[in-house]
Amino acid sequence: MTTPQAIFPLPIGIVTVSDRAYRGEYEDKGGPGIITALSELLKTPWNPITVVIPDEQILIENALIDLADHKGCALILTTGGTGPALRDNTPEATEAVCHKMMPGFGELMRTASLQEVPTAILSRQTAGIRGQSLIINLPGKPSAIRTCLDAVFAAVPYCIDLIGGYRLETNPAFCTAFRPKT
Amino acid sequence: MTTPQAIFPLPIGIVTVSDRAYRGEYEDKGGPGIITALSELLKTPWNPITVVIPDEQILIENALIDLADHKGCALILTTGGTGPALRDNTPEATEAVCHKMMPGFGELMRTASLQEVPTAILSRQTAGIRGQSLIINLPGKPSAIRTCLDAVFAAVPYCIDLIGGYRLETNPAFCTAFRPKT
Amino acid sequence: MTTPQAIFPLPIGIVTVSDRAYRGEYEDKGGPGIITALSELLKTPWNPITVVIPDEQILIENALIDLADHKGCALILTTGGTGPALRDNTPEATEAVCHKMMPGFGELMRTASLQEVPTAILSRQTAGIRGQSLIINLPGKPSAIRTCLDAVFAAVPYCIDLIGGYRLETNPAFCTAFRPKT
Repeated sequence: MTTPQAIFPLPIGIVTVSDRAYRGEYEDKGGPGIITALSELLKTPWNPITVVIPDEQILIENALIDLADHKGCALILTTGGTGPALRDNTPEATEAVCHKMMPGFGELMRTASLQEVPTAILSRQTAGIRGQSLIINLPGKPSAIRTCLDAVFAAVPYCIDLIGGYRLETNPAFCTAFRPKT
Repeated sequence: MTTPQAIFPLPIGIVTVSDRAYRGEYEDKGGPGIITALSELLKTPWNPITVVIPDEQILIENALIDLADHKGCALILTTGGTGPALRDNTPEATEAVCHKMMPGFGELMRTASLQEVPTAILSRQTAGIRGQSLIINLPGKPSAIRTCLDAVFAAVPYCIDLIGGYRLETNPAFCTAFRPKT
Repeated sequence: MTTPQAIFPLPIGIVTVSDRAYRGEYEDKGGPGIITALSELLKTPWNPITVVIPDEQILIENALIDLADHKGCALILTTGGTGPALRDNTPEATEAVCHKMMPGFGELMRTASLQEVPTAILSRQTAGIRGQSLIINLPGKPSAIRTCLDAVFAAVPYCIDLIGGYRLETNPAFCTAFRPKT
């Protein structure tokens, strides 16, 4: 494991996983949806490193590894590819590259999404740790992305503290990061 | 993966997993409980394909594979074998034959069952996709079966759409299937 | 699998997993927190078998195996090591030694803890069965331990019944064990 590089503003990986967006048949709305959400949630200056890739497990794995190991992203968010269809491979790719899985993220994101649509249980989204990076799978639709980020984001900065990453500060108008006193 | 066969009425697999029911020491109530529930929940004409097998992992796997790959069942429901006991092997068999796991089903079925009994957390029930079939583990008791099906059934038709299966219509008196507009 | 030994009072394994507690840099509060909670929750006479070990996966595995297979503990509770940090290995050790995983315990303990802190989703705590022993991961802080035990304990005696262990009776002032009529 490498020590975090002093890159500033903080790089955050944003991975759009979609065959159609990759082929240009369809405008990527997930990636921009994540950027809009983070612009409100984060006070710490940050820079998006965006990637658009097809629903191919090995390509998703390579993108996650590159953002975690070589681009110094303490936080990597994916959008798309978490459903039950044949080409939905994002959770498998995430699990393949993570050293530790974080089941609480997927559970809470599904519970929050269930308040909006009963098909929330079809999302297989998960989260995990690779080295000093937290990887979180998000849905494809911007409104669903926001629901999921709002549900879990208060726990994200402390998670990144615990894995030795940068100290993230949230914007109290939108999110109050929680750090237990120990 | 094979394309769905144009079998009509739709075959739905119903697998009772129970040593005692298999040996005839005990009347199978789970299988009939599923049939009663589906008769209310589904408007699309369907036919049950029922199997009663002992709690032996390889036999459960073989039954699931046969119903998915050779009998054309877009939906396969199991009853029994999800607890912590030595002979409870249904979730392991399900995981062994599925190409993708769907953790949201088990989470929501346990949450719904917890409203009724605190021992709901002892159910290890899960769900997953094999080819063009959705496999869902249900409890053994008819009342618990109904609680679980009521909790998740609104998401079942869209899940089957996404894996390329038959279009299921639900009976609005009992369940309103949800299909997101995309 | 061995038959349960007629050890009485019942041995219950309590495993503190903490590098700092093991090195004596820090007083173990988790182990004593579990003992206090069980003293209230259980009516059946019991004896704690306590172990304090560092956050090393193989040492956690060995401790769990010893308590389950050689010390006759029908219930083994761990404290610590369930977070996302590099040295948090308790869930991995638990999964490595269990014959069956019980996902409902972790789900419900996280849901209960979320009522208190948004960082509850960072706990990767799980539970599982090894032979005739139920192993449950608990957090490190005594107050969080109590929240988790209160959430799941009503299901613990019936779980131990189902795996062929001792019949535990709870103290009705603190917990009412639930055993379904079958």
